[in-house]
Amino acid sequence: MKIDIVTLFPEMFDGPLGHSMVKRAIEKDIVDINTINFRQFGKGKHQQVDDTPYGGGAGMLLKPEPLFEAIDAINSRNPETKKRVILMDPAGKPFDQKMAEEFSEENHLVFLCGHYEGYDERIRSLVTDEVSLGDYVLTGGELAAMVMVDATVRLLPEVLGNAVSAQTDSHSSGLLEHPHYTRPAEYKGMKVPDVLMNGNHGLIEEWRHEESLKRTFLRRPDMLENYDLTEKDKALISKWQNETADKKTDEDF
Amino acid sequence: MKIDIVTLFPEMFDGPLGHSMVKRAIEKDIVDINTINFRQFGKGKHQQVDDTPYGGGAGMLLKPEPLFEAIDAINSRNPETKKRVILMDPAGKPFDQKMAEEFSEENHLVFLCGHYEGYDERIRSLVTDEVSLGDYVLTGGELAAMVMVDATVRLLPEVLGNAVSAQTDSHSSGLLEHPHYTRPAEYKGMKVPDVLMNGNHGLIEEWRHEESLKRTFLRRPDMLENYDLTEKDKALISKWQNETADKKTDEDF
Repeated sequence: MKIDIVTLFPEMFDGPLGHSMVKRAIEKDIVDINTINFRQFGKGKHQQVDDTPYGGGAGMLLKPEPLFEAIDAINSRNPETKKRVILMDPAGKPFDQKMAEEFSEENHLVFLCGHYEGYDERIRSLVTDEVSLGDYVLTGGELAAMVMVDATVRLLPEVLGNAVSAQTDSHSSGLLEHPHYTRPAEYKGMKVPDVLMNGNHGLIEEWRHEESLKRTFLRRPDMLENYDLTEKDKALISKWQNETADKKTDEDF
Repeated sequence: MKIDIVTLFPEMFDGPLGHSMVKRAIEKDIVDINTINFRQFGKGKHQQVDDTPYGGGAGMLLKPEPLFEAIDAINSRNPETKKRVILMDPAGKPFDQKMAEEFSEENHLVFLCGHYEGYDERIRSLVTDEVSLGDYVLTGGELAAMVMVDATVRLLPEVLGNAVSAQTDSHSSGLLEHPHYTRPAEYKGMKVPDVLMNGNHGLIEEWRHEESLKRTFLRRPDMLENYDLTEKDKALISKWQNETADKKTDEDF
């Protein structure tokens, strides 16, 4: 996979791309990641990339020309690849695991990062996707691009040492993860649950599934709408619903 | 504000914290950001921080002791501050702008970043908040912490050069942002809308509000549930709803 990141702050990426899983994926030639500073396509002797908005208002806007020319440069360097051009945009479609999976199927991803008030609207005509990292405001698109690169690259074949890990993470199975415990068996008075110590793998799996289901029920009931519940799951959930209802009634008195 | 980031990869933060807005906030002494490598509290001659899970399963888990000792060290260095201890956790509460605003009111934030399969459950007893960046899986908590630091620090007084910018961004006003345009007036056949060129500020504000509302209606209707619509807004939305319905009927034939 080829990834181009179009940004005014290429140095921001050194740390995040130079460590851990992404670094290993680059070293193994699974992914080729380049940053392109579109300042080089800025206009005038100050290589201007931004300008004031038509119609007035605070802040500066990215001009169209430098980003169009950056995309032209990427296209002429890679005439053969089909590109997915992704604009980091708070008004875009919220990024999620499904989108990461989709991105991981592509051959060439191009991330466009802004770092000012906003973009000239015509820049949107360059892109295939407008994506938001979440419902919060960031200073620039750089951190958003780093997150999307990380979430995507870890899904490429042979990137994670242990393929099972990718599948059992929260959000991959459709449920939140169950609690985990490692040594010591007791720490500051807190003990590891007995079921995990007794070596009965059937019971362990059952405990883990129920704990996953319970945590999802308590914290993210919205996720259960898309999860295929068994009859036993449904019975557990109505038991927990009753318990929660009883508690509320108790509190009322 | 004081921020401590507890991580095994402190170098990952050099780029993101060394640029742009966060860098300026550090230089102006508005925020003091430290990274703490909890490897120093690892156990044995290999300074072990992780171990295999009780009950079996793939991957490694962060042991409780190193993180407990890292928090002890932060507490003894800062006995006077009230700390908000935030665990980066895919099973946590989804991060949003409201949470960023809440964090920006605190005096001392501590971010705990894992970088393995998961945490020993007892680590949760250390924290005040368990927060997820979004519904996607990351290799580690580092990128999530960077995003939360960025979203929080930009809200601190005097960090952004232009206070108006913070307020008019998408997600701050409750609506997505309207389109923006800057020079040139025409680029590759695409023209700036006339209304922005005519200098009538009343009309410009009206156009911008309608475009914000329309973009939110089309892309993120969920955001309108929490937005205080005027009667005129409601009339526009039902007009757009009818248009969308008409379009669908046309397509059916």
